[in-house]
Amino acid sequence: MQLPISVSRSSDAPIQAQIVAQIRDLIDRGLLSSGTRVPSSRELSEQLGVARRTIMLAYEKLIAEGYLESRQSSATFVSALNPIRAIHVDGGGAPNSHREETCPPAHLPCATRNSPNLYIPAHQRSELDFGIGRPDHRLFPQKAWQRIMFENFAAHARVISDYPDPQGYRNLRLALCEHLRLTRGIDCSDEQIVIVSGTQDGLNLVARLLNQPNGKAIVEDPCYNGAAAAIETFGMKLIPAPVDREGISVGDWPKDAKLVYVTPSHQFPYGATMSLERRKKLLSWIYESDAYVVEDDYDSDFRYNSSPLFALAALDHSRRVIYLGTFSKSIGPGLRVGYAVFPRHLARAARDMKATMSNGLPTLSQAVIAQFMRSGAFERHLVVMRRQYLARRDALISGLLEAFPETRISGADGGMHLVWTLARNQPTARDLAVKCQDAGVGIYPILGSPICKSFAPASPRDVMLGYTPLTEGQIHQAVGRIKHLLRASS
Amino acid sequence: MQLPISVSRSSDAPIQAQIVAQIRDLIDRGLLSSGTRVPSSRELSEQLGVARRTIMLAYEKLIAEGYLESRQSSATFVSALNPIRAIHVDGGGAPNSHREETCPPAHLPCATRNSPNLYIPAHQRSELDFGIGRPDHRLFPQKAWQRIMFENFAAHARVISDYPDPQGYRNLRLALCEHLRLTRGIDCSDEQIVIVSGTQDGLNLVARLLNQPNGKAIVEDPCYNGAAAAIETFGMKLIPAPVDREGISVGDWPKDAKLVYVTPSHQFPYGATMSLERRKKLLSWIYESDAYVVEDDYDSDFRYNSSPLFALAALDHSRRVIYLGTFSKSIGPGLRVGYAVFPRHLARAARDMKATMSNGLPTLSQAVIAQFMRSGAFERHLVVMRRQYLARRDALISGLLEAFPETRISGADGGMHLVWTLARNQPTARDLAVKCQDAGVGIYPILGSPICKSFAPASPRDVMLGYTPLTEGQIHQAVGRIKHLLRASS
Repeated sequence: MQLPISVSRSSDAPIQAQIVAQIRDLIDRGLLSSGTRVPSSRELSEQLGVARRTIMLAYEKLIAEGYLESRQSSATFVSALNPIRAIHVDGGGAPNSHREETCPPAHLPCATRNSPNLYIPAHQRSELDFGIGRPDHRLFPQKAWQRIMFENFAAHARVISDYPDPQGYRNLRLALCEHLRLTRGIDCSDEQIVIVSGTQDGLNLVARLLNQPNGKAIVEDPCYNGAAAAIETFGMKLIPAPVDREGISVGDWPKDAKLVYVTPSHQFPYGATMSLERRKKLLSWIYESDAYVVEDDYDSDFRYNSSPLFALAALDHSRRVIYLGTFSKSIGPGLRVGYAVFPRHLARAARDMKATMSNGLPTLSQAVIAQFMRSGAFERHLVVMRRQYLARRDALISGLLEAFPETRISGADGGMHLVWTLARNQPTARDLAVKCQDAGVGIYPILGSPICKSFAPASPRDVMLGYTPLTEGQIHQAVGRIKHLLRASS
Repeated sequence: MQLPISVSRSSDAPIQAQIVAQIRDLIDRGLLSSGTRVPSSRELSEQLGVARRTIMLAYEKLIAEGYLESRQSSATFVSALNPIRAIHVDGGGAPNSHREETCPPAHLPCATRNSPNLYIPAHQRSELDFGIGRPDHRLFPQKAWQRIMFENFAAHARVISDYPDPQGYRNLRLALCEHLRLTRGIDCSDEQIVIVSGTQDGLNLVARLLNQPNGKAIVEDPCYNGAAAAIETFGMKLIPAPVDREGISVGDWPKDAKLVYVTPSHQFPYGATMSLERRKKLLSWIYESDAYVVEDDYDSDFRYNSSPLFALAALDHSRRVIYLGTFSKSIGPGLRVGYAVFPRHLARAARDMKATMSNGLPTLSQAVIAQFMRSGAFERHLVVMRRQYLARRDALISGLLEAFPETRISGADGGMHLVWTLARNQPTARDLAVKCQDAGVGIYPILGSPICKSFAPASPRDVMLGYTPLTEGQIHQAVGRIKHLLRASS
């Protein structure tokens, strides 16, 4: 530790006194707190370019004054208590308590109170929590991951000491080309891929790249709030387009809109899969309007009732689709790795913009994912997850149908959550959520959700249920509790 | 692997024929390439909800046609060659070669060709490379790091399966409070800290938070290009302020500027330490103008000739300084972790903006750094690094002075690089750099550097030399080669 003190040889005060005064001041101001170990006399003498004897004398004086104390061998610490510091300690905080200003200045346009936040601390979750987009940690392939991590660790000293490629680790981009070609029908080169720290980062990259002063962006209504917030904070105007069971309704949109944001595989939050007809219509509109589509393919790894459709990006021959994918659902959101695929003519601008935004992602985690994919372990992991999640989804659907025969469910063909529309004779989603919380069950009403943005008034009867973090047994138990609650309240 | 195919039961074509046609098409279009293993008949039958026998028959037909081949036991692969695919293969690429569009549309404001880029691939570096801001990988505390990483790995399945706190892992923020208090005199709470993926990410966060339409930002001339690019791409106008040996000259700046970006500890690139007088003057200006300072403290962990001064943020009692720090220099840039400290009244807006920009950083690396700091290993590591880097700096200075007695050097009091100003009778920095490159020595002229932004014409005689990636012996050798080159050319 280097203490922030210095000595002046041109001062009248002796050097020892200068050191004593400054350390005393650091302690009085609360910057050095009790119990902190101060540097050894050797370290401080090296730092200040002062004889070690001078430091030892200064420390002795501070010990005599009660500021420092010498414990064990030769180590010196700030005393547990001394008369002056006691005032601050009893005062309940640091000497500069900053109570004066707590609001941001009014001119800051940015203080969005409605920021998207997928983070829910463990202690705020219910015992049986239908969390959205959360993989089951019990299914994480800890062994395979650990083995690959340790294999990569030998090279770690070298890769941690270098700036990574801001576009992303090349082996990961190459593995993604293969994966996207096989599973999503996307034909791209590694030069078109930018590794991002998740979909949110990717959305910001795209919005910043395509942003125009007073530009317009068309979004699904309702849509993922993270996308709305990312686009809106760049000053673009959001134009909502209604969603039905075939996905976004391509309609009479303003021709000067330059960006359309969609979730074709599993519309967020309602879960519709965009029909092929709509996809073609959307692409036609894009070509005519000289605009771009952002395809957020957040949970397409999980498809249950039918094969995955080709991605929009696979249908797009004039290269107007920007594709966003993530490992947050397939591996885990604590990894913070996703990817964006750009049309070839935008790739260079995207790489440059990414370098302006950040100097890339940690090399180790990218190398581990690349090897996880190359080794086939990723594909095997997905097979396991799909089977498990399918069983959980089915347990949830059959449980709900058994408890409430007239249950209406949507968005269950794929992904990690479905939407349950409560009947007229049942409480509203919000009322039920409050009751459920008391019963240890976490459910997520769409109305008022921090991760859903609605333009038209959202239905008060729709609840999102993420079935992936819970086992079949837990789902059974949770549905039982909900049934009990609804029976008691009717 | 799930193939992007599907079957329609309402179609006239038999299901087996539908499958054959679609797989044939995937292969013809190059989406399934030769050697790729296709799903087992069991997997595909599960995916499509079709009898396994149907899949087996479809595969047999495709094998007979030469599209697939069966190797080993029961695994089936795309054939190495077949008549139709050979055309594409010989054509030198994927069927859709996207040669039509290679330039971004002219209306995109963003395609900055001058994006900052600290990434230099290993094969592009010289044998003896005076790289800027690069720690020596031989000094990375691999053992201590590995031990902490493995200790944290037990909890990994859980933390990787959850979204992290977008503000950053709390234990890391707490460890930073302590570190900043002791080493930089900054008195802050963990609520004021946002963990970022390095200084570049932090700069974007600040610029985006404080950005105003047609706003003005004052920057050092020259300055770090990453900062200039981050601020400028948000549409702010950069006002350059000259730098001398006391740091930025606080002058007659426009009163409506709302942001000043400085590097007080070690001005980038010239290395001046901002004098206390200038610091006070700068803060006075800020208070009068109702503006903010961004203090980029990128390499203050390394201070050689004197103690570190308190950070500007420590002097700032009216809370107008935003402090940026990074682990890129002290641990390694491949880690991608830094931190921003906000005045209390901006902390909430900063957290919200960070959540809009990305959902935080990987939990594991943050947990490892926190434990590395708490255990005292970080401080011990810094002590080792400081001694080594000091010895290397001294080797470079004495080597240059010995070879060229009139050598002018600046910025050597701290940090990881110094600036060597070539004499009039020596070649320009650029000419010397070209010669050096041929001799296996990497040196970095300020004029034309992608990481330096100059407003006034930069001196053609100034060279940056990073002494941290090279041993004393290598530095000696490199200076010897430069001496030889200059003697040969004079």
